[in-house]
Amino acid sequence: MTTEQHGGNIFAHSVQYDFSANLNPLGLPESVRQAVFADSALWAHYPDPYCTELRKSLSEYEHCPPEQIICGNGADDLLYRIIQAFRPKRALICAPTFGEYQKALAEHGCLIQEYPLDEKNYFLLTDAFLNALTSDIDMLILCHPNNPTGKCIPAELLEKIAGICYQKKMILLCDECFLDFIPNPVSIRNFMQENIIILKAFTKTYAMPGLRLGYAMTGCPEYAGKIQQAGQFWSVSAPAQTAGIAVLKEQHYLKDTLDLIQKERQFLQKSLSELHLKYYPSDANFILFRAEPDLKSKLLSEKILIRDCSNYTGLDETFYRIAVRNHTENQVLISALRRCIHG
Amino acid sequence: MTTEQHGGNIFAHSVQYDFSANLNPLGLPESVRQAVFADSALWAHYPDPYCTELRKSLSEYEHCPPEQIICGNGADDLLYRIIQAFRPKRALICAPTFGEYQKALAEHGCLIQEYPLDEKNYFLLTDAFLNALTSDIDMLILCHPNNPTGKCIPAELLEKIAGICYQKKMILLCDECFLDFIPNPVSIRNFMQENIIILKAFTKTYAMPGLRLGYAMTGCPEYAGKIQQAGQFWSVSAPAQTAGIAVLKEQHYLKDTLDLIQKERQFLQKSLSELHLKYYPSDANFILFRAEPDLKSKLLSEKILIRDCSNYTGLDETFYRIAVRNHTENQVLISALRRCIHG
Repeated sequence: MTTEQHGGNIFAHSVQYDFSANLNPLGLPESVRQAVFADSALWAHYPDPYCTELRKSLSEYEHCPPEQIICGNGADDLLYRIIQAFRPKRALICAPTFGEYQKALAEHGCLIQEYPLDEKNYFLLTDAFLNALTSDIDMLILCHPNNPTGKCIPAELLEKIAGICYQKKMILLCDECFLDFIPNPVSIRNFMQENIIILKAFTKTYAMPGLRLGYAMTGCPEYAGKIQQAGQFWSVSAPAQTAGIAVLKEQHYLKDTLDLIQKERQFLQKSLSELHLKYYPSDANFILFRAEPDLKSKLLSEKILIRDCSNYTGLDETFYRIAVRNHTENQVLISALRRCIHG
Repeated sequence: MTTEQHGGNIFAHSVQYDFSANLNPLGLPESVRQAVFADSALWAHYPDPYCTELRKSLSEYEHCPPEQIICGNGADDLLYRIIQAFRPKRALICAPTFGEYQKALAEHGCLIQEYPLDEKNYFLLTDAFLNALTSDIDMLILCHPNNPTGKCIPAELLEKIAGICYQKKMILLCDECFLDFIPNPVSIRNFMQENIIILKAFTKTYAMPGLRLGYAMTGCPEYAGKIQQAGQFWSVSAPAQTAGIAVLKEQHYLKDTLDLIQKERQFLQKSLSELHLKYYPSDANFILFRAEPDLKSKLLSEKILIRDCSNYTGLDETFYRIAVRNHTENQVLISALRRCIHG
């Protein structure tokens, strides 16, 4: 079996339970489907290149001026456009982390420094990281909470990092695509400065990866303008704009999500523990754990897809990532794991 | 009134008749709407990054191996990815032509040479162009038929250009996004070589710009792979993939389109002539013509949007482009033009 670049490719396998993509287990809200259907007349027109209505909704939701928000065809579209817009010469990222940072930076010939997270410390970022923020670095990319390790950056450390980046005129790109799954999170927004860009997505929070919608919030309108200018004019489709506006009106969905994730993450971690599988305590809606290298193919024979993490720097073929799903699905996974490991 | 980068921004104006975007006047086929609704369960999954089913359909439709087809979030997404993948140092484009070529090339620091099309010769490309294909150029971008001038490149010249580009190892990117509006067209595919990339879109042909879907066909699988690799992993949304597969099954839509466009282009050109407005005879579904500089704002007061062409190299504020629409709409436009010009 070849290693896949990312999770979630249900088209390459026969899959009944997808634990490889870290999506909201509540699924796409029905209101989104209805809104997209109702707005189908818009498909025959070019979409609003500036996503004016959607940015208005996001501005209210995020308490951020619309001039500091840019929407994209998924958070990944924005990642590539941000790097295109600022063309960093030397960037610092953590390892292991989401693979697209490295790919996007490398495409623009950026020198990439990887800061190794310590497995023995559950891959938690510590104050020692501050020494890596040297003046020759012009962009720092953080993933908060980090994918695939599931840990948030401690609030005090986040504040110190923001301070140093501001002082050293470094662009701080903070990927908070999974932060909405965490109750009372400390966002980098608490320490916002003009050099900070935050990446967020509707993809995971609202289980709508097929529609492609992400956004970025910047510390100043000038940065937002630069990102908007980079790449094509009409990147966000009409259905995605409609969906984003509709889903931000959902009242209980996010609260229900937080309750479910917390309960089910606890269930999964306890179960992994009972199976004597080493896991890395997570703050997020996914869990990193270790098992035998053939686990992915064994589970696939039961139509369950998990994320093989062997293509992350610093991890090997004994590392796996699973999404926190609903209780029925999680029980299916744990039963299958029991069979695979003790079978 | 500020000049707009592109046509079709109905969100910036109060518009009832949009002649600024060159879309199929038959509108989005109902089959697309139905297919997208039926497939909405896919929105909750990551889209197939390789657009496997869609590329299969395109392969049959275009008689091109699927390994030589790449899909994108509109043709513009592919334009940026192609330039990202090949990073030309010196490129040649015609002037006037579609503005995104210049923007995409400039983003990557490419030196851009503009070959001026001769207004006196109706902006038609002639054999004199062959002298501009010097060995220091590593990418040629052609627009066939050319936007906004509406002229196809003569078949014999197209063949000669393809021959020289192949011989000089120049990438020849040929934008044929409007070629489906022309009966029995001569595509650059007639002279296909491994250095050729063709850009096509569903946007205009099927009036679905809001869904964002384009594709490229390459002369060799290696080029397709390079373009697929450039930029983000999941660029084509699930609704766009569904729509593309559905619309390629349409039996009569394109034939009806050709009949309508031919008849209505004739009507519009004759009417412009009767109004003593100079127009440039078009092969395509849009017409370039000249009038007083205040025509756009006058028509906007009647809720009609046309494309002010003053931001094209070589044109000024007396040049306008109109799309060929259906007869009722075209009559509305001509009546309004009559009032604006003689009023």
